[in-house]
Amino acid sequence: MTQDIKNRKIRMGMVGGGQGAFIGNIHRAAAFLDGEIELVCGAFSSSHQNCLNTGMALNVDASRCYANFNEMFTEEAKLPEDQRMQFVSIVTPNHLHFPVAKAALQSGFHVMSDKPATLTLDEVNELAEIVKQNNRLYGLTHTYTGYPMVKEAHHRVAAGELGDVVKVVVEYSQGWLADKDSEAGKQASWRLDPARAGASCCMGDIGVHAANLAEHITDLKIEALCADLTSVVDGRTLDDDGTVLLKFNNGAKGVLISSQISVGEENNLSIRIYGTKAALEWRQQEPNTLIMKFNDKPSLMIRAGVGELSPAATQAMRTPAGHPEGYIEAFANIYGQFVQQIRTFEQNSAEGVVGNAPGITEAIRGMAFIENVVAASHSSEKWHPFLLSNVNLAGE
Amino acid sequence: MTQDIKNRKIRMGMVGGGQGAFIGNIHRAAAFLDGEIELVCGAFSSSHQNCLNTGMALNVDASRCYANFNEMFTEEAKLPEDQRMQFVSIVTPNHLHFPVAKAALQSGFHVMSDKPATLTLDEVNELAEIVKQNNRLYGLTHTYTGYPMVKEAHHRVAAGELGDVVKVVVEYSQGWLADKDSEAGKQASWRLDPARAGASCCMGDIGVHAANLAEHITDLKIEALCADLTSVVDGRTLDDDGTVLLKFNNGAKGVLISSQISVGEENNLSIRIYGTKAALEWRQQEPNTLIMKFNDKPSLMIRAGVGELSPAATQAMRTPAGHPEGYIEAFANIYGQFVQQIRTFEQNSAEGVVGNAPGITEAIRGMAFIENVVAASHSSEKWHPFLLSNVNLAGE
Amino acid sequence: MTQDIKNRKIRMGMVGGGQGAFIGNIHRAAAFLDGEIELVCGAFSSSHQNCLNTGMALNVDASRCYANFNEMFTEEAKLPEDQRMQFVSIVTPNHLHFPVAKAALQSGFHVMSDKPATLTLDEVNELAEIVKQNNRLYGLTHTYTGYPMVKEAHHRVAAGELGDVVKVVVEYSQGWLADKDSEAGKQASWRLDPARAGASCCMGDIGVHAANLAEHITDLKIEALCADLTSVVDGRTLDDDGTVLLKFNNGAKGVLISSQISVGEENNLSIRIYGTKAALEWRQQEPNTLIMKFNDKPSLMIRAGVGELSPAATQAMRTPAGHPEGYIEAFANIYGQFVQQIRTFEQNSAEGVVGNAPGITEAIRGMAFIENVVAASHSSEKWHPFLLSNVNLAGE
Amino acid sequence: MTQDIKNRKIRMGMVGGGQGAFIGNIHRAAAFLDGEIELVCGAFSSSHQNCLNTGMALNVDASRCYANFNEMFTEEAKLPEDQRMQFVSIVTPNHLHFPVAKAALQSGFHVMSDKPATLTLDEVNELAEIVKQNNRLYGLTHTYTGYPMVKEAHHRVAAGELGDVVKVVVEYSQGWLADKDSEAGKQASWRLDPARAGASCCMGDIGVHAANLAEHITDLKIEALCADLTSVVDGRTLDDDGTVLLKFNNGAKGVLISSQISVGEENNLSIRIYGTKAALEWRQQEPNTLIMKFNDKPSLMIRAGVGELSPAATQAMRTPAGHPEGYIEAFANIYGQFVQQIRTFEQNSAEGVVGNAPGITEAIRGMAFIENVVAASHSSEKWHPFLLSNVNLAGE
Repeated sequence: MTQDIKNRKIRMGMVGGGQGAFIGNIHRAAAFLDGEIELVCGAFSSSHQNCLNTGMALNVDASRCYANFNEMFTEEAKLPEDQRMQFVSIVTPNHLHFPVAKAALQSGFHVMSDKPATLTLDEVNELAEIVKQNNRLYGLTHTYTGYPMVKEAHHRVAAGELGDVVKVVVEYSQGWLADKDSEAGKQASWRLDPARAGASCCMGDIGVHAANLAEHITDLKIEALCADLTSVVDGRTLDDDGTVLLKFNNGAKGVLISSQISVGEENNLSIRIYGTKAALEWRQQEPNTLIMKFNDKPSLMIRAGVGELSPAATQAMRTPAGHPEGYIEAFANIYGQFVQQIRTFEQNSAEGVVGNAPGITEAIRGMAFIENVVAASHSSEKWHPFLLSNVNLAGE
Repeated sequence: MTQDIKNRKIRMGMVGGGQGAFIGNIHRAAAFLDGEIELVCGAFSSSHQNCLNTGMALNVDASRCYANFNEMFTEEAKLPEDQRMQFVSIVTPNHLHFPVAKAALQSGFHVMSDKPATLTLDEVNELAEIVKQNNRLYGLTHTYTGYPMVKEAHHRVAAGELGDVVKVVVEYSQGWLADKDSEAGKQASWRLDPARAGASCCMGDIGVHAANLAEHITDLKIEALCADLTSVVDGRTLDDDGTVLLKFNNGAKGVLISSQISVGEENNLSIRIYGTKAALEWRQQEPNTLIMKFNDKPSLMIRAGVGELSPAATQAMRTPAGHPEGYIEAFANIYGQFVQQIRTFEQNSAEGVVGNAPGITEAIRGMAFIENVVAASHSSEKWHPFLLSNVNLAGE
Repeated sequence: MTQDIKNRKIRMGMVGGGQGAFIGNIHRAAAFLDGEIELVCGAFSSSHQNCLNTGMALNVDASRCYANFNEMFTEEAKLPEDQRMQFVSIVTPNHLHFPVAKAALQSGFHVMSDKPATLTLDEVNELAEIVKQNNRLYGLTHTYTGYPMVKEAHHRVAAGELGDVVKVVVEYSQGWLADKDSEAGKQASWRLDPARAGASCCMGDIGVHAANLAEHITDLKIEALCADLTSVVDGRTLDDDGTVLLKFNNGAKGVLISSQISVGEENNLSIRIYGTKAALEWRQQEPNTLIMKFNDKPSLMIRAGVGELSPAATQAMRTPAGHPEGYIEAFANIYGQFVQQIRTFEQNSAEGVVGNAPGITEAIRGMAFIENVVAASHSSEKWHPFLLSNVNLAGE
Repeated sequence: MTQDIKNRKIRMGMVGGGQGAFIGNIHRAAAFLDGEIELVCGAFSSSHQNCLNTGMALNVDASRCYANFNEMFTEEAKLPEDQRMQFVSIVTPNHLHFPVAKAALQSGFHVMSDKPATLTLDEVNELAEIVKQNNRLYGLTHTYTGYPMVKEAHHRVAAGELGDVVKVVVEYSQGWLADKDSEAGKQASWRLDPARAGASCCMGDIGVHAANLAEHITDLKIEALCADLTSVVDGRTLDDDGTVLLKFNNGAKGVLISSQISVGEENNLSIRIYGTKAALEWRQQEPNTLIMKFNDKPSLMIRAGVGELSPAATQAMRTPAGHPEGYIEAFANIYGQFVQQIRTFEQNSAEGVVGNAPGITEAIRGMAFIENVVAASHSSEKWHPFLLSNVNLAGE
């Protein structure tokens, strides 16, 4: 039964996600969905009572509900190898992502971090060094790449079914920050605060997902951009809306629209990729459909579970055709990919791994996107090069 | 911390769902999603090695991986109250649903059963007696009632927003049994076999979901029906397609279309309810939208997470607007409702319970629907009364 | 220039359609759209002043604005062959369709009649005799067969792309008669009056279009039916809602849903045709799209103007892809087909005729459908044969 | 009967539109649809035989089929006032729009011109002078403003239902020029030729419609723009794709996407207008629906013919709800508005005029848009002011 031991659940710790926190529940649902992850410890809250209550409700032993993340990493490292936490899920407010990740990696644990990886491009470059030096795995929840139809889109582009990509139209629009009243909420207050949110609100929170999606599906890299960020609602320091023109490294053009003041938009992430032979269209709010278009024949409605799909897409589905899977399943796929990476890492073998969780590369490009967009918006020049370090946020 | 103990995970056992079985994974994903259920034991397979492997992968102690369900119920009953299984999830082939449920109830355990509850109407009436005599909870996974927008629809009908319901159009169509080749599959073979599937294939497998959905949303009861069942593919004994005209107990009319030979249909469950003042339309493949229509003003696109919704709908959602939830989340809501029922049952209090899992009432009406539809189809008379026992399956 | 004379506009007269009448405008828009028809005379109204005003606004010479249809046929017949009306368009209330058509045919004119052809099945059988005896053309505006994508659907079924047709689901639902208040309107009052509307309201007005569409696209014939017609709104003699189960002459089954009390439905005519190999779906409210579905590959979104379509569909379009065509264009196609029939008739040649306008065959089947459905609804037997004459409207 | 004379058909002449020309048929269908326009003369083709044949097929007297437009204007001017052409419809290739319009206006005739009005901004400014000096009406077929739901959108913005407009996203994408092969076609060859098409292909042909639609619905004016035009297909001098960032005169931002190389796009014109209180979305390919969105309540599906709509929208519809109207009907509304303007002009009264056809103002802004976009694209500065004359096409 040796081969079964390797199938035992992976042991996860969590920093953040105490009772009353929203995103912790989503991460846990995603982690638990496939029955491959066991929550064994946590520093769920700065309130120890909250931490204990959270742990009890989750069947975490009280002795492994820690006062803070440093204690957790120290104590867990003392436990026998087959009992101690294998990776930590970081679901704290943003400014803690970097210090928690750094401590975990340096204590020998793998890290799955909520987005954004850090607050600045400088920090993420430092983080990349730490990942490398400690030879640990680092995952980042760019959730949307977890959808089966996004994987199918990536596969079809990579297989050349579109010909050369010539144009990308990507949008991520929401409406929830459309008025002053919206700022009262807990979610809004820190996102609009430069001290806690960093250089950008809209582009940092959601525009970066759109950029990630475009690069992920096409395997292209943004090389230059022209940006117009706006603070639509009076009194805001950070952007709540913006449009970015893009040049990719193959010469393709693109446009990225992002907004948090587009009244009535829920979570409108969508992408269209035009090639010389065909085009693809995907909308996150109807995630199980991928439309493939042609000039000279009918469009295809590619549906999860119908007909032959790529292995990456097929492996990312749990239900038969017509049983919709959604955001939590996509999120679970990110966790599932990370679990696979851990299993492979521990067995020193990469066999059977299809797709990888977004990691440190995506973390760097994401932070670079944010800082370059802000710089480009400040500039009076039309085009701004996409730099991977030392971006001048004030523009030229 | 007394109040927290009641929040500890509920302990579940499972009969069926060994490695290689499909529906067990769905049930477990649904059970695990919200972190409120712990799998503590199982009789996952008639192969003990499979049972052990399944248990190990799920962190179930080898000592609680049982050889069969009778052993499981006997042994678990001997464990201390705070350790032993609280309810059993039954995910076996259909003909075992009834005997497993019977044994579990008689051993003092609650039961969550996959659909259908039994093979015959007689059996389900017997089951109802057993549930009552043993004072245990019984849940049935009529999954589709777990969707938030189905709950919203139910709320709006009950609140009188449609006026009097006058017409219901409900459909559940699939295409996967459209040809002879499809019969080779494991799923198909037993469903087309009267010995294992009972009196009907299409109506028993999916038509019954449509009937349940119509009765659930409207709070009406089918009183009479006129049915035309067909075996479209040559050589089949059981129906693979059918249409049923309905009369409800308030005088409303309805039509129920169901098929497993409608090529290209994935899992096309949809319902429209027409009232004297407004109408509702819901489609399972786009489950987060509910359309409300009027004669004299624009239709409303009611969306999960947008604006004020009923408490039942709100409580059934995990994510903000625009983050699609799907089939597994709906399934998890059925489990979540059952967990709430167990907690309430154990604390002898019904406070806080919103919505109830489908149970023995739905089980009876479901088996009655199947047998009455078959009888109505055999009859040369147009209308057949909806009987709750002693249906003559051969028709008049 | 001989070949050009045959391209001169066809000369049309009109009975009905005076100022204030609705359907006359639609017929004229359809007739004028392609510039192939000239309105030369009319008996537009029983009010001669209205007739003259209508004629003047349409540039019809006052001398050819007639007091009644008998005068019109008599006087026009006296004019030189190259000046006199070639066909009459009948847009009167329903009870006049038959007498006007009869008089026109017997005076030597072709007839394009609004639907229904007559008030009873007996009348339409008599009309068929008159058409034959007088060797004139007879057209009936079953408008929906004029849509390009309906023609494409017909072509694909006929070409065997669906395999054998096994099931048809067709619906025509509206909501405008959902309450008593709606009866005050001019359109409603006669439709609900047996003396003026005949044996049925809902099935006679719109259900018959659905039946026609199903037979037209599949080239199948309804052989038996089981019907449940309802008068949902209190006090109505005629049906305002109904469902009909169908058996076609190849053994296929079908269901036809029709309603005028389905609140919020505008003009919801839709059809799905399931074959052994593929299925088609068309919705009149988005008429330029035809969906073709398969079990084992993605659905096709067949769009007007995109890729290779059948000659019948291509010939029925006026604009490039993405420039939507609608109801009036479909209506114009019916007129256009009739114009082609007239040109062919006059040149004694059938070359170049693609598609034919609905005619006396469709008129007979339509009236038979209405009378058989009413009889079937009255019957307590499940199935009723589709008779082409002598239907007993009271049922068995 | 004096009041009826004013209702007689308006007499139209046509320049261009001989047999074999496409756009002439569309203009004629639009002009004939409502029975308010009579074609009395034409210079349909430079081939006199083609001109005569075209005229004969349209029942135009051979004596009024002219050899060229100058002869037509001269001869028609000699006819009695109640017989001669009242306005000319110009459907020639683009380079003739200006000279024909100029000659017509100077001969005393109103002009309805196909788009674009001229080849350059200088020409259109000259044309505006001619219109003014000759006191004639000038109409331009910016067809898309003729749709009822565009009128409804305009009404709702003007009525303040959106609050302040803060963002506009407008797109007009097609795919038909995606490859070299496409250039062989007649339509493509002149559009890609600077000598015949002017300064831009994509922006001049369709981007200008998008700009017009944005300004029309919002009543805002573009004040500055940032443009990135691309010639995606090798060897093209003119743009076939581009994106433009916009600043409007109220401070709102916008983005305009236009393309002729977006494979699979048919005629994808769509617009979203975000205000502080609500948003609107309209898609030309489903033109009878207008979606109105809110942050705190369900979206409205505003449909042509359902509920109370603005007078401008209501007046622009010919059919009841659910009977789709399309492109030709929108085009006919432009002609209908122009007919109303002529009737009002001739009676020296503006009563009853709702909505005006696009005219010389739109012509000027359209040509300015084209030239400013090209200049902006050439510039290395991010923002370019929107100038109404003397644009430097080479950029700064």
